[in-house]
Amino acid sequence: MPTAIRPKDLKAAQDAVPTLVRVNPYLPGYTQKDIHTRWHPDIPCVADVPLGQAFRVECLDYSGGQVVNDDCADDILDLDHDSDHHLSGPFFVPGAQPGDVLEIDVLEIRPFDSQPWGYCVTAPGLGSLDHPDVETRITKSIWDFRGCETSSRHVPHVSFHGRPHPGVIGTAPSPELLAQWTEREADVARRGAKGVCQPVVNGAYVGQDLEPGLRDRIYREGARTSPGREHGGNIDIGALTNGAKIYLPVYVPGAKLSVGDLHFCEADGEPTTAIEMAGIATLRVNLIPGGISSLSLRTPMYQTSPADLRYNDQLVFTGLSVDLDGTQTESGGLVAYRNAAFSAIDYLMEFGYTREQAYILLSVAPVETKVVATANRPNFVISLGIPLAIFDFDIRPSALCGGRRRREITGPAV
Amino acid sequence: MPTAIRPKDLKAAQDAVPTLVRVNPYLPGYTQKDIHTRWHPDIPCVADVPLGQAFRVECLDYSGGQVVNDDCADDILDLDHDSDHHLSGPFFVPGAQPGDVLEIDVLEIRPFDSQPWGYCVTAPGLGSLDHPDVETRITKSIWDFRGCETSSRHVPHVSFHGRPHPGVIGTAPSPELLAQWTEREADVARRGAKGVCQPVVNGAYVGQDLEPGLRDRIYREGARTSPGREHGGNIDIGALTNGAKIYLPVYVPGAKLSVGDLHFCEADGEPTTAIEMAGIATLRVNLIPGGISSLSLRTPMYQTSPADLRYNDQLVFTGLSVDLDGTQTESGGLVAYRNAAFSAIDYLMEFGYTREQAYILLSVAPVETKVVATANRPNFVISLGIPLAIFDFDIRPSALCGGRRRREITGPAV
Amino acid sequence: MPTAIRPKDLKAAQDAVPTLVRVNPYLPGYTQKDIHTRWHPDIPCVADVPLGQAFRVECLDYSGGQVVNDDCADDILDLDHDSDHHLSGPFFVPGAQPGDVLEIDVLEIRPFDSQPWGYCVTAPGLGSLDHPDVETRITKSIWDFRGCETSSRHVPHVSFHGRPHPGVIGTAPSPELLAQWTEREADVARRGAKGVCQPVVNGAYVGQDLEPGLRDRIYREGARTSPGREHGGNIDIGALTNGAKIYLPVYVPGAKLSVGDLHFCEADGEPTTAIEMAGIATLRVNLIPGGISSLSLRTPMYQTSPADLRYNDQLVFTGLSVDLDGTQTESGGLVAYRNAAFSAIDYLMEFGYTREQAYILLSVAPVETKVVATANRPNFVISLGIPLAIFDFDIRPSALCGGRRRREITGPAV
Amino acid sequence: MPTAIRPKDLKAAQDAVPTLVRVNPYLPGYTQKDIHTRWHPDIPCVADVPLGQAFRVECLDYSGGQVVNDDCADDILDLDHDSDHHLSGPFFVPGAQPGDVLEIDVLEIRPFDSQPWGYCVTAPGLGSLDHPDVETRITKSIWDFRGCETSSRHVPHVSFHGRPHPGVIGTAPSPELLAQWTEREADVARRGAKGVCQPVVNGAYVGQDLEPGLRDRIYREGARTSPGREHGGNIDIGALTNGAKIYLPVYVPGAKLSVGDLHFCEADGEPTTAIEMAGIATLRVNLIPGGISSLSLRTPMYQTSPADLRYNDQLVFTGLSVDLDGTQTESGGLVAYRNAAFSAIDYLMEFGYTREQAYILLSVAPVETKVVATANRPNFVISLGIPLAIFDFDIRPSALCGGRRRREITGPAV
Repeated sequence: MPTAIRPKDLKAAQDAVPTLVRVNPYLPGYTQKDIHTRWHPDIPCVADVPLGQAFRVECLDYSGGQVVNDDCADDILDLDHDSDHHLSGPFFVPGAQPGDVLEIDVLEIRPFDSQPWGYCVTAPGLGSLDHPDVETRITKSIWDFRGCETSSRHVPHVSFHGRPHPGVIGTAPSPELLAQWTEREADVARRGAKGVCQPVVNGAYVGQDLEPGLRDRIYREGARTSPGREHGGNIDIGALTNGAKIYLPVYVPGAKLSVGDLHFCEADGEPTTAIEMAGIATLRVNLIPGGISSLSLRTPMYQTSPADLRYNDQLVFTGLSVDLDGTQTESGGLVAYRNAAFSAIDYLMEFGYTREQAYILLSVAPVETKVVATANRPNFVISLGIPLAIFDFDIRPSALCGGRRRREITGPAV
Repeated sequence: MPTAIRPKDLKAAQDAVPTLVRVNPYLPGYTQKDIHTRWHPDIPCVADVPLGQAFRVECLDYSGGQVVNDDCADDILDLDHDSDHHLSGPFFVPGAQPGDVLEIDVLEIRPFDSQPWGYCVTAPGLGSLDHPDVETRITKSIWDFRGCETSSRHVPHVSFHGRPHPGVIGTAPSPELLAQWTEREADVARRGAKGVCQPVVNGAYVGQDLEPGLRDRIYREGARTSPGREHGGNIDIGALTNGAKIYLPVYVPGAKLSVGDLHFCEADGEPTTAIEMAGIATLRVNLIPGGISSLSLRTPMYQTSPADLRYNDQLVFTGLSVDLDGTQTESGGLVAYRNAAFSAIDYLMEFGYTREQAYILLSVAPVETKVVATANRPNFVISLGIPLAIFDFDIRPSALCGGRRRREITGPAV
Repeated sequence: MPTAIRPKDLKAAQDAVPTLVRVNPYLPGYTQKDIHTRWHPDIPCVADVPLGQAFRVECLDYSGGQVVNDDCADDILDLDHDSDHHLSGPFFVPGAQPGDVLEIDVLEIRPFDSQPWGYCVTAPGLGSLDHPDVETRITKSIWDFRGCETSSRHVPHVSFHGRPHPGVIGTAPSPELLAQWTEREADVARRGAKGVCQPVVNGAYVGQDLEPGLRDRIYREGARTSPGREHGGNIDIGALTNGAKIYLPVYVPGAKLSVGDLHFCEADGEPTTAIEMAGIATLRVNLIPGGISSLSLRTPMYQTSPADLRYNDQLVFTGLSVDLDGTQTESGGLVAYRNAAFSAIDYLMEFGYTREQAYILLSVAPVETKVVATANRPNFVISLGIPLAIFDFDIRPSALCGGRRRREITGPAV
Repeated sequence: MPTAIRPKDLKAAQDAVPTLVRVNPYLPGYTQKDIHTRWHPDIPCVADVPLGQAFRVECLDYSGGQVVNDDCADDILDLDHDSDHHLSGPFFVPGAQPGDVLEIDVLEIRPFDSQPWGYCVTAPGLGSLDHPDVETRITKSIWDFRGCETSSRHVPHVSFHGRPHPGVIGTAPSPELLAQWTEREADVARRGAKGVCQPVVNGAYVGQDLEPGLRDRIYREGARTSPGREHGGNIDIGALTNGAKIYLPVYVPGAKLSVGDLHFCEADGEPTTAIEMAGIATLRVNLIPGGISSLSLRTPMYQTSPADLRYNDQLVFTGLSVDLDGTQTESGGLVAYRNAAFSAIDYLMEFGYTREQAYILLSVAPVETKVVATANRPNFVISLGIPLAIFDFDIRPSALCGGRRRREITGPAV
């Protein structure tokens, strides 16, 4: 019996939704074409976007293949963070001019069939829950994808439906904007901020053929991809899932759109990593001429999806902007977020989870955060809601009353 | 034809859900019993809570009747903010001991039939959108309640379903906790924080009969109610609407629960006031002995309602922690929130709203905020989603492309 | 201390949302003005609707006060079903002409504070689950309202948020339409249909002053209110809750709108009664001239509410159009519905509920039905989804595996 | 640069989620292995299900490749309906015995990348909207898949997110059950029911190697797959989408589970076909020994998905069980459904859609039906809700008031 698909049908299917970039998730990022790890206006485009039409982009995971599916976190110890994130593109948007806006439909984000798993990492200095009183250990948890569902052998008794999305999607900065980024971030680093990624040649990579001088300049000047910025970039919007739409400003002719850092699922607030994965993004781009002015667009705007998750029943933790040692901060958002997270972690530990497992859940599960109150100075209040339905046991307070319900739970790879 | 309800049936109905406190929304708060405007462990209880049973508490609006339903904001100019908030209670919870937790069902919050309206106020120094570059003017908008729906003659082309909730619900602090609050807030004020409310005799009020010495001490020491704190208080959780549940820690025998500052609706993040109203809270209290320890409860925890609003289709604005003048802050939550809000305001102004009208909408409508990303230093990202369905015209970007759609819109009372 | 509300404020509040009809839920319906129990074009209007403005209508329960809050079902045995339903009105809609459409906003439906309870009735011949093989007994269950929540001492381990709505809302038929109804229903009764209510003088009632001749004619000719019809009437749309909108055709000048039969909550499909209650409807009416033609409106159309319940996690039972004795029907919708209901009842009985308790739940809880498939002849498929969150124990199949989980559950009043 | 995935990783990925059946969507169904078009207990299993583990099954579209992607409906004219549906399997469930229940997780349903389109068909005699007064024409509409979104050149101004699901999923009947089906359906056909599919050799197909005698018997006795029945089969549950769970009874050792007839999206009630497609089902099966008794399972039961669509804002049409000619039926579900559908069709035609286009929308879009009321004899009421958000223009009644809004809309292939 014949098993091959007819070539002309395959061709028609491929033409209907062309693939602009192909990658191999099992090979190192720094060996692959059409991949870059910095933001710079002079990185050449790898393909034209078919305006108004769906297209596919294959993407590596953010680390570019440094993490393997096993039970040992040695790869995390050795992780080269300077090469974050391995992005596909950039793509040329015909007709796009500075001042325009791209309207981008996120039509589908999905993992490769050949790599049905992702990972989450915790490490000191990596995420937002670092605190002198609370040690963060290095861990790796592997999350298996079973269709739209995921679960991890490293964080048992939990499974959930993903809400896949691109962690990074952004346009290229103009030279002036790039200079602004570099300056303002250097300034905050000088003022003592920790963990602010400055331009560095180590880890810089552009897969395209380049003249040596240009390559040197891009590697030296290129903005690190870690912070989200006004062009989008690593804004990590969990709600930017299949069916959502994002609006991005254009700063250079052709827009130079890049995408990558796919996530299978992410908690709002993402204190460490999401469930990081390689995979395929299906997008559609339309152009809004002069949109920056007509939409008053300073930073990305998006429209929600009719298919986002419905995990409505949540147990919600609050955090105030008072530090763990009792110091009152003035509307400190990060302090408030951290307090809500620490409360949730302590709560989940009552059921037998380790601190790291609870931390991972707060970063990868479909957790919903809110800025609750901003005006009641000096206390900023942030909340963090954990869906009840993702656990295979009851996590409501009644389950903890009248005697703890400790479980034997094995931990993530350390 | 007889029109009176039979006394015994009325009695049975009243016994089924007893009313613990009655107030008159048309009289000044400082003339009414069972009302207090400070947190202090020594304020005497006004009634016992029937444990496990529904009861009603009538509440004044937060200002205690200072605001009238007209088109002139002179009452706002004269508003005595030192008397915030006029709370009902406190209530004694039989058996409650320090270390316990109250589980409180919010069964219903609703306005008085005799006062089917509320108000929102903007003023310099009042909310969280104050910024040197953006002037906040004094305004008052009146919101009419038509059953569960509200709209305002001062902010046209908008109407929405309320999600009524108590802005303030909290237990009394122990003397030690009260001392901590006072100290840490004085400290942050000394360090330069603006708008931090310190204890002050002006505006202090307890409606109960008290010995003069005790009254003096409470007025002098009592914590201001403006900031939300670990006991709950003014945490302004919009999701704490009919059908939700909140968990509060107990610090003194009998818990001394107070409630007030009812809101007809509030945006997440509430940058200025909500739709402030007087009305009736129906609550039910259960006791979790030793709950602070068994639930690891440091600050309030709540469970969402099966009846919260379903305004899922939203246009969402993002804000980064880079100040308007280009200064990079280190994960500044308030800066990020403000930027998202400023973007949304500018966007709404494209349709013809004034800055104040847009600001009001961001504070009273069922707006959904999220802490999007916290780990991508130095940029904290916050989002603010405006439901499309509350406008009687299309606010999606397509409506702004190819020519502005200015509307003639009349403003709030100034 | 003064406790009275100022008369002028009360007056303003009353003027803002005027009450067009007042009733006393503790007095018999047949003693009260502005109440009628039949549809007829000649029933005089009791008030004018203020077009485009909110107004209130007080309503009796459908039985007109025949049911009392106790644990004995004798009142149900004696219930006079000929007097269903006790409706308030009719109301004159200024300018409405035959061919127009009323757009009616359901702004709020709520019980009287003086009667915070409702009831559900099962009885042979009353509902849609009658079947030769399955006996229906007479029962009464009392449902207490605690704010927006309800529960019943007669059906334990269950509580839920209501979705209050008017069971009956309709316009008056023209004489021609009334004649059609009478004829087509007589015809189906002649063809053997059971339980079809024909015009009957017993139970007919119009509270208005009428000339004797007119009264006789209305009582003799008036259509029974039990079936929903093209004008609306008893269509029992559970989704017509606070925030929804319904469109009704106009057949006579002034439309003659009536409303009543309020429900605190109802299952889709409502096989017997809902949670029947007396209370207050807040409505707003707008007029669409010529709407029957421009909207192609033959029967009521409605728009859903942004505040309808979010009980998304459901266990869903299916029913096919094969009768219990194995007879295949041709796409019999009632048979399919009944089979889904019988499966759900048997399932709930595994947990210890009696047949009647399970039946009641299928009629009063926020159950969601669907017409699943209509084209796969001869099998019509209907589904019936029970929300998991309304039970205080786990009803998922895993709870029944490996040994039954029988509970001691006390029954409804019989 | 290397582009091949490493063989061992591909192997691990394939082992993680093995594919039990492979098909070619571009070849005729009757040429492919592991495909069958009838229900019969003696069809041999093609593979064992790995109990508790995810696996994939590739499926043809229901017609087995008879429909092509073009603008001419000649293929529909020639369609051999006797070969419905082309199912994959059956699969052997180790340990399953009669009386057990299969719990099946629908982990993902998706189209083949090589065939990113589906189709909908209307034809006289095919669906449930046939009526002497309303002619149904033969049409074919092609629906393109762009990631999770679909739209059709044949039904413009509409696009929506899919909710993919298996139209058919069922276990094999025992010989006794098969005999019952045959008898009861023959009986209803004898009584005059139209469109009831009886056993017929034409179109019967089993891809497995069989002894001639067995093949003859299966072809002669095998039940047609069109009606859904107690084993599941063609029950066309639109809600059985990614993340849902279905419970099916076991009648023969090993259960003999089959699946197919994948749909990209379907309206509740599916009056004609869904968006029919070939694709890949990812499933997981667990066994509940003795489940038929412990769950009282007579027909399929399912649990909803946390990821089902959130198209909450709907315009809802109602239908009563009164036929178009004015004849009252006794609770005729099909009549009521048809009336709601006819009203919706007439309404959509006001915007310029043809009858066929509107009909197609009611069958393929995420439409929500409800059994509204069953007890108000003689009128059964059914509703049909159309989501507002799937149209690129406003379909609310206000858009039709004050002058029609006719559009030029091109039709489906005829």
